[in-house]
Amino acid sequence: MEKKIIVDVCLSPYLYPVHHRDDAIVVVIDILRATTAMCAAFHHGVDKMIPVATVEEATEYKKQGFMVGAERNGIPLEGFDFGNSPFSYMTEKIKGQTIVISTTNGTQAIEAARNAHQVVIGAFTNITALCEYLVSQNRSVLLLCSGWKNRFNWEDSIFAGAVTTRLFEAGLHNTGDAAKAMSFLYEQSQKSQIKFIRNSSHAERLAAMGLKKDIKYCFQLDQTTAIPVLQGKYLVKLP
Amino acid sequence: MEKKIIVDVCLSPYLYPVHHRDDAIVVVIDILRATTAMCAAFHHGVDKMIPVATVEEATEYKKQGFMVGAERNGIPLEGFDFGNSPFSYMTEKIKGQTIVISTTNGTQAIEAARNAHQVVIGAFTNITALCEYLVSQNRSVLLLCSGWKNRFNWEDSIFAGAVTTRLFEAGLHNTGDAAKAMSFLYEQSQKSQIKFIRNSSHAERLAAMGLKKDIKYCFQLDQTTAIPVLQGKYLVKLP
Repeated sequence: MEKKIIVDVCLSPYLYPVHHRDDAIVVVIDILRATTAMCAAFHHGVDKMIPVATVEEATEYKKQGFMVGAERNGIPLEGFDFGNSPFSYMTEKIKGQTIVISTTNGTQAIEAARNAHQVVIGAFTNITALCEYLVSQNRSVLLLCSGWKNRFNWEDSIFAGAVTTRLFEAGLHNTGDAAKAMSFLYEQSQKSQIKFIRNSSHAERLAAMGLKKDIKYCFQLDQTTAIPVLQGKYLVKLP
Repeated sequence: MEKKIIVDVCLSPYLYPVHHRDDAIVVVIDILRATTAMCAAFHHGVDKMIPVATVEEATEYKKQGFMVGAERNGIPLEGFDFGNSPFSYMTEKIKGQTIVISTTNGTQAIEAARNAHQVVIGAFTNITALCEYLVSQNRSVLLLCSGWKNRFNWEDSIFAGAVTTRLFEAGLHNTGDAAKAMSFLYEQSQKSQIKFIRNSSHAERLAAMGLKKDIKYCFQLDQTTAIPVLQGKYLVKLP
């Protein structure tokens, strides 16, 4: 019997229990900006990252001497080493280090999926390497959008659609309404990316904070081949 | 200070707690077919409906002598008077009666939203009357898609987009990413409704059961001006 491979999209970490499958690789998505920042960090030589859901945990690690990134609502928290900007991780000082990170949405999504078969980190900046890896694994894929405080957001959904479209093209076809709808949204977004980004309330929020450079970077394809993968409490680079 | 009116879309009953607002009118949507069937029933003179989440409750009411509609996975359950087809409610025998109804998704969504300011029932078949009512109320609206077993589905999401588009046109503009995305999906669906319906896995499921006539009816606009509204445990017709 042929193995049933499902490509599914989960539009909020809150919905994860509805979408969980024992056999699926979960791709955690937080385009603006947590998962893009994680890809940048591994590209720039970080050894391990420890994603934590709460500021309390982040503070505890900081006390223990770790370098820590902590952000809420787009703003880096005081007393920590990094925020959520991919550019802050493009530095020599992270090379070979272990960095703790806690963000508004992305690290919550990782927490939600912790019991999955495998958790990998996706962003436009690693999309080609990610899709090649997913196709090579020949098993079900669950694209988990971090969203905004458990709500649907544009940029994560469109990225889920972009991956779905590529997996369709590679021959994975068994999928549900959400994957089809997000794939459609992505294809439309190709016609006018600027118009689509304008629909993102978080892009608007970041632009108002003067972070247009971040937004631009987060939508650039293939800046790295690094795929962060969860191993126990650590994110490491997939070999 | 101007009152802040939000048009929000909740893509699954499971997500309702994330989207709940004390001041919002919740529109429960289950296009294929529960909410379309409810609109048909009120158009054909039913006095009250009692939506119940479980088959056990439906059975209990049946024992008490009520007429009961009960459906799971598209199939009418044995021993009850109706299933989920709008056509089954287009009969003289429901006139002035109280009918109990339990369905796979729609009645679960009503259950989820029971504590809302107001719960009304929406379908393509009552869309114009519904939108006029919502605009007249000058308060926040939460479009609650019943989905399929707590997952996103096409037809409910597109209906949410259709209502959002009309509310935008009527001047309600404060909205989030989900409302914008579903409005966009709806606008695209106008270009090729057939293609869009083909993307609905539940339409596919019903078509395979020989229910194409039901599908066609469920996408027809303005077959009634009846708007069912929840009052305590009853759905009644909005005066």
